Formats: sequence, structure tokens, C-alpha cells
Amino acid sequence: MNAAIGQLIGVGVGPGDPELMTLKAVRTLESADVVAHFAKAGNNSHARKIASAHFRADAEELPLLYPVTTEIHRHDDAYKTAIAAFYDASAARVAERLMAGQTVAVLSEGDPLFYGSYMHLHVRLAHRFPTQVIPGVTGMSGCWSQAGVPISQGDDVLMVLPGTLDETALAERLSQADAAVIMKVGRNLPKIRRALAAAGRLDRALYVERGTMADSTMTPLAERNDDRAPYFAIVLVPGWEQAA
Amino acid sequence: MNAAIGQLIGVGVGPGDPELMTLKAVRTLESADVVAHFAKAGNNSHARKIASAHFRADAEELPLLYPVTTEIHRHDDAYKTAIAAFYDASAARVAERLMAGQTVAVLSEGDPLFYGSYMHLHVRLAHRFPTQVIPGVTGMSGCWSQAGVPISQGDDVLMVLPGTLDETALAERLSQADAAVIMKVGRNLPKIRRALAAAGRLDRALYVERGTMADSTMTPLAERNDDRAPYFAIVLVPGWEQAA
Ligand SMILES: C[S@@+](CC[C@H](N)C(=O)[O-])C[C@H]1O[C@@H](n2cnc3c(N)ncnc32)[C@H](O)[C@@H]1O
Ligand SMILES: C[S@@+](CC[C@H](N)C(=O)[O-])C[C@H]1O[C@@H](n2cnc3c(N)ncnc32)[C@H](O)[C@@H]1O
Repeated sequence: MNAAIGQLIGVGVGPGDPELMTLKAVRTLESADVVAHFAKAGNNSHARKIASAHFRADAEELPLLYPVTTEIHRHDDAYKTAIAAFYDASAARVAERLMAGQTVAVLSEGDPLFYGSYMHLHVRLAHRFPTQVIPGVTGMSGCWSQAGVPISQGDDVLMVLPGTLDETALAERLSQADAAVIMKVGRNLPKIRRALAAAGRLDRALYVERGTMADSTMTPLAERNDDRAPYFAIVLVPGWEQAA
Repeated sequence: MNAAIGQLIGVGVGPGDPELMTLKAVRTLESADVVAHFAKAGNNSHARKIASAHFRADAEELPLLYPVTTEIHRHDDAYKTAIAAFYDASAARVAERLMAGQTVAVLSEGDPLFYGSYMHLHVRLAHRFPTQVIPGVTGMSGCWSQAGVPISQGDDVLMVLPGTLDETALAERLSQADAAVIMKVGRNLPKIRRALAAAGRLDRALYVERGTMADSTMTPLAERNDDRAPYFAIVLVPGWEQAA
């Protein structure tokens, strides 16, 4: 390993409560030369907010700002090209620092390799630079813990389903799962609600918004009279029907 | 809330590396009056080993030792009766301390409500006592982070499958999943291997033993010539085939 080359570290910072950061994440941030974080242009990085108390005073912050793509559908080739170019450019900016011998910590909300943006840097850089990934508490763990809901037990099959799937696929998956977590709720909430009803699981579904954050709320989904949901929202369908 | 009544706290201690405990878990243990942990008789609690550096010097330790049931199959009524009686008795011992105004932290390897024993106390006590659950980094997050394997992305469906499922069920689930995690490997490894082959996923499967612990190992499952596996072993089938 070339001593002059820096280390890439994917750092999971947990679901929202800064106390849910790991000791390892905190120690890593206390010594990192550069702290990179993804955000939409004009928004603050949520991961940055969770972790910023631990940055070194003289650390360089490297915000990686997603290109604005609201006019393009995410299955369009134009979207895929724009987003791949963005990840390429971001990886190049990180690589520059690594070549200069700096340690670069890339923040990830929750766990880095679980539906996280960090992995787009990882696949571009991990074969070229010494790399480490620090796991974090996922958003779903934060949500079911806060709700006090045992999610899965024994022989339960737990499915993690992106709310971006189409309604038929969602309903079919939900009817096959013992327990389920639906991520990426946001504008998909009405569709998710219909899929849960079709699968006969709506009565057990729990909606959790901003789990473990100061302004978190939760409610049985069947009782919620609002079809809007923010980005940080999740739906839990607990397994394990008998309490034994 | 009666001030004389203590609090029950399920504490996730993460997958093995003590540095993967959260700040909140550490602070909770530093002040808990009683620390309870599950173990098989004759074994040490793995969660205790991860967390013991943080116990209060004068904390009471309450080991909860599983009854020996090796002669009985886990689907037998005799097993179910013995194990339910054990959880009832364990809950009663914890309740005694809570009634006396003590804070009782119950350790959980990984995350408490994700296939963890803590939930058996939770369902018996959370309606009677003030209760809090502190999420932890799961074993699976520890394993895929150590392996540097992006597990799921975009529209991927991730299935968590207990290795205790029968071979046909496992193969069927595996053929429907974009990404999969197989837990509770142990003596189920030969069956898991056959199910992965039947589903055409054996070539992507990664075997990880004791993830994030000092003596951890990992290997592509297809290259492993050993049908034995310890309790702390997991099989990962990453989603997201294209690295873009
Ligand atoms: C792109 S994924 C990233 C997941 C993250 N890497 C993790 O480990 O949880 C974002 C989705 O995770 C879910 N999520 C993450 N944190 C959450 C929280 N604190 N409360 C509710 N949902 C959350 C939401 O469904 C959100 O749309
Ligand atoms: C009863 S489940 C408990 C899961 C735990 N509550 C969690 O959050 O990961 C035990 C299974 O989790 C998996 N596991 C947990 N920690 C692990 C680790 N550090 N390395 C490999 N497998 C692990 C193994 O498959 C094991 O049989």
C-alpha cells in the first residue's frame, strides 16, 4: 500500500438521532481530512446535520450536489446519463484528494451499502484506493425500534421493498412476505396504500416519518388521512402475529 | 408514570466489533442498574462480550440461560412449551427489578427487534413498564460492509431469509429476490448451498463468518469446501448487477 495514498471511508451515520452514530463513525470523522456528503442542490445534507458536531475543525467539506433532473423521468436514458456523469465527476473529485494522501470520509444516512448513494463512489474507487466501510444503524431499524414493533422472528421472511415498484409488483410481493419494510415512500404513498389493501396487509401497516429525529411521528397507515409523505418516511408490516 | 418504577431498555450492541456500538448504547449501559443477557447454558453471551467494558462497576448482571432442548425438535409442542416457560420466567425476573425502580438494560447482538431474543421480553413487559428500544447495527450490515459489497440499490427487492426454511421454500424465494441475505446458517449450510444452486444464484453468493469480529473470514460460497458453519455466519447475495 502506497503510504502517500489516502483512504476512502464510507461512514454510516445512522437514521437521524446523532446518539445513534457508532463510536467508530465518530472516531473516523474526528480524524478525516475531507468529509464528503451528497445533497440535492439547495438542500442541506441530512447526514451532514447528524454528524457535523464531530468534524475536525480544519477538515475540508466536499458537498456533492445532485444535478437537477426533475424534468426527466428516472427510467429515461437522459436521466441515467446525467446521473452517471455526476457520479463519475464526484468520484474524480474524491480521487484527487486520495491521490494527495488525504483521508476522505463519505457520509451516508443510515448504512452506506443499503440503498445508499455512497456505493456509487465505492464501485468507482474501491479497486484503486484502500477502502473501508463503517456500517450504520439503518433507517428501518430506527423506525421499528422507535415504534417498539418486533419486525421479524423465527422463520419469518422479511422483504425490503422500494416504494418505487409498480402497484402490481408491490401487492404481489406483500402478499408473499411474512414481514415487510417499504422504503422510499414520499409521493408513492397512495400507490403503497392500495397495494397493501390488495394484499390484505393494510390493517397491520405502520407509517413512520423521520424515525429517531426530533420531529418524528408515527401512525397506523389505515388511520392516516393524508396522501403526502416526506422523503424520510417508511411503512412497516410486522411479522410474527402471535406474541409468544 | 410512576417514579418508583424502573425502565426497560432493549439495547442493540451491534454485530461484534465493540466500536460499532452506538453512543446511545454506551451511555445507557454506563448508567443501567441491571444488565440482562441471553445465553445458552455453558456459553458466554456474545452480546455481553461486545459491551461489558461499559457496564457500571456496581451493576447487577442478570444472565438469562436458555433451557437445554437439544433432544427436542423446535417444531415440537414440547419445545414450544419449554421455551415459552423460559421467556415467562425471564420476564418475571426482569419485572421484579423494574418494580423495585431499577433500570434494566437487556443486551441484544445486532438490532434488538430484528430476529432477536429481546422481543420475547418486550412483548411480555412493554405494556406494563416504560420501555425504550435502542437500535443497533445488524449482523448483515456488519457483514456486507466488511465485504465491501453493495447489497441493494434503486428498485432492488431485498429478502432476508432464515436458513431454517426448507429447501424448496428457500430456492423459490431466492429465485424471486434481486438481493438476499440468508441468516441462521450453521448446520443449514448444505441445504442453503443446494437452494442457491437450484435458484441459479450460487455463483454470486458470499459466505461471511463472524462479521466485524477479530477472527472474521469470508469467501465466495462456491469456493468453500466445508459444510460446517458456526452460528455467526451469513450468506449474502448482492443485487445490483451492473456497477453504474
Ligand atoms: C435511499 S434510501 C437510504 C437508506 C439508508 N442508507 C438506510 O440505511 O436506511 C432512503 C429511504 O430510507 C428510508 N429512511 C431512511 N431513514 C429514515 C428515517 N429516519 N425515517 C424514515 N425513513 C427513513 C426512507 O424510506 C427513505 O426514502
Ligand atoms: C437470531 S439472529 C439475530 C440477528 C441480530 N439481532 C441482528 O440484528 O443481526 C442470529 C443470526 O444473525 C446472523 N449474524 C448476526 N451477527 C452476525 C455476524 N457478526 N456475522 C455473521 N452473521 C451474523 C447469523 O446468521 C446468526 O445465525
